[in-house]
Amino acid sequence: MAKIAILPGDGIGPEIVAEAVKVLKVLDLPLEMETAPVGGAAYEASGHPLPDATLDLAKSADAVLFGAVGDWKYDKLDRPLRPEQAILGLRKHLGLFANFRPAICYEQLTHASSLKPELVSGLDILIIRELTGDIYFGQPRGRRTAVDGHFPGADEAFDTMRYSRPEIERIAHVAFQAARKRGKRVTSVDKANVLETFQFWKDIVTEVHAQYPDVALDHMYVDNAAMQLVKAPKKFDVIVTGNMFGDILSDAAAMLTGSIGMLPSASLDKNNKGLYEPSHGSAPDIAGKGVANPLATILSAAMMLRFSLNQPQAADRIESAVGAVLSAGLRTPDIWSEGTQKVGTREMGDAVVNAI
Amino acid sequence: MAKIAILPGDGIGPEIVAEAVKVLKVLDLPLEMETAPVGGAAYEASGHPLPDATLDLAKSADAVLFGAVGDWKYDKLDRPLRPEQAILGLRKHLGLFANFRPAICYEQLTHASSLKPELVSGLDILIIRELTGDIYFGQPRGRRTAVDGHFPGADEAFDTMRYSRPEIERIAHVAFQAARKRGKRVTSVDKANVLETFQFWKDIVTEVHAQYPDVALDHMYVDNAAMQLVKAPKKFDVIVTGNMFGDILSDAAAMLTGSIGMLPSASLDKNNKGLYEPSHGSAPDIAGKGVANPLATILSAAMMLRFSLNQPQAADRIESAVGAVLSAGLRTPDIWSEGTQKVGTREMGDAVVNAI
Ligand SMILES: CC(C)[C@H](C(=O)O)[C@@H](O)C(=O)O
Ligand SMILES: CC(C)[C@H](C(=O)O)[C@@H](O)C(=O)O
Repeated sequence: MAKIAILPGDGIGPEIVAEAVKVLKVLDLPLEMETAPVGGAAYEASGHPLPDATLDLAKSADAVLFGAVGDWKYDKLDRPLRPEQAILGLRKHLGLFANFRPAICYEQLTHASSLKPELVSGLDILIIRELTGDIYFGQPRGRRTAVDGHFPGADEAFDTMRYSRPEIERIAHVAFQAARKRGKRVTSVDKANVLETFQFWKDIVTEVHAQYPDVALDHMYVDNAAMQLVKAPKKFDVIVTGNMFGDILSDAAAMLTGSIGMLPSASLDKNNKGLYEPSHGSAPDIAGKGVANPLATILSAAMMLRFSLNQPQAADRIESAVGAVLSAGLRTPDIWSEGTQKVGTREMGDAVVNAI
Repeated sequence: MAKIAILPGDGIGPEIVAEAVKVLKVLDLPLEMETAPVGGAAYEASGHPLPDATLDLAKSADAVLFGAVGDWKYDKLDRPLRPEQAILGLRKHLGLFANFRPAICYEQLTHASSLKPELVSGLDILIIRELTGDIYFGQPRGRRTAVDGHFPGADEAFDTMRYSRPEIERIAHVAFQAARKRGKRVTSVDKANVLETFQFWKDIVTEVHAQYPDVALDHMYVDNAAMQLVKAPKKFDVIVTGNMFGDILSDAAAMLTGSIGMLPSASLDKNNKGLYEPSHGSAPDIAGKGVANPLATILSAAMMLRFSLNQPQAADRIESAVGAVLSAGLRTPDIWSEGTQKVGTREMGDAVVNAI
């Protein structure tokens, strides 16, 4: 019996997670699911976005299915109490260093992209973002009086970007191994021309590459990568990069597909235990209206079955069902277009269940 | 008599700068121009990408017209000797803290964008990137043995992100003042949800905004900004951000227009002395072939006349001439399309001269 921690969170989180749970249940697998509050919902309930009980549940589970966190109404809280601290805390405490962010353009939704159809049709890239290092967690950080720089004596704020050799090695291995199962090409994105951290990154990725002669590696500066994603996204296969650059590039790539409401993500630890969540956010503006697209969360559940629960057939069944529902013309408002049938969150979930 | 330092640099730099110089000369203004090597060319000539003589010339001049630097062949050099150190050194030693990067989609070139025409037609956004602070120049940086983090005892590399109050204040003023002359809207891009530096940035930009009640301010996280640029770039007017985020976003925005070969840039100090350069790079692959687009450099010269040399009419004349040449259907290969006339670098420069 595998145990799944269900953390719905804020905004549209509860609605979309409910549909994914429905889909998981119909598969009739030996799964035990336990729900706990996270983010703003947890703050409201108990004064902290990641209560101990929630963290303990996540730690004891074999996998975590996560909705989304955040709402404008928490913007005024001190940083440690804000909803997004929950996701940072889960990454850190569970050691989820490898973030898989596929950017796939579904044939049926090509028109939804901002890009010309020929540039995105068939797009299938995988961004692997390091998730527990870099400037996200680097110490020291804070405020102080500047002792040097342009304005010695002035107030300043600072953060530390850092990567150690084993952190870079392990994410490089993840990227090369993932590339082996796909197009066999890795683009490592850095800013080695400016940053010590990313010169080190580039050197170590190059070293690790020696163990993967069957995979091609190239290096690209982050500014150029942002340009190439806009210009010719299909030229990429696997992109591997640090936490900060990965945050920016994976969101840009997701938006390129035009259907971010379709994109799942996985954040894995060294034993392939993972947290699974849609690539989109909590969308407080449409929360509770029953119009959110549950497919990214449903596809995240499929990723969970494949990566953490060793149930690849069940994952296939979900993914085929999602394909069938799209082919049948069902669309939530975010991906709707003339000639297709507009449905709500629950109808979409039901349709996937029926297709299974 | 104003003095201009002409720094052609590497790759296509010399070719495109030659055309801009030709255009400046035909305007018959009281300008004295002096040329010096920079980047790889300077390294070849004298062993350093930014020789003292070049830096002294740039310091003594009223403005700098810069081509481009860099070539793969210098990749193996130690970082301090690589071509791009010249541009970082010029920014630092000249105090060029305010980088203006317009992303404009010329009506005649709308089709060249990766984006659907309706999303970019009429696009006119201005990215103001802080250019002498942030993680680009923050000390300390280097390699060491980790004392904490995930792998204490391991080798690590690190950099310091930092911004002081006066650095943020002055770039915020630049942004609000620029917005006053255009759409009166500023979007400040940060990552305040994760970084101390950018919470400080956000707070201070908000404070400075109190002095500009006629300008609207909103705040956006950098990952969201990358998405919104892809989704609906026309929603932006002025974007202000730090050095690192600005590097990524300004290149992405430039590429969105589809005609990065058309985009000038200015980097200004506190007295509006500036360095002007095309937004694109040195393109070593097409160097010496006479096919590079000189228009971004010619338009950079126009920006120079307007911002640093107080010659707005002359700037207007250049910009109108460029418009006329485009309307006449002349195109270098990078912006060529069916039904227009393909011309080389020199022919394009000559056409602008004739249109003036
Ligand atoms: C909410 C925020 C802290 C988070 C991040 O920056 O990692 C989010 O943008 C993401 O990508 O999951
Ligand atoms: C060459 C490099 C150091 C530079 C930067 O990162 O600033 C370039 O990308 C730019 O934007 O001018």
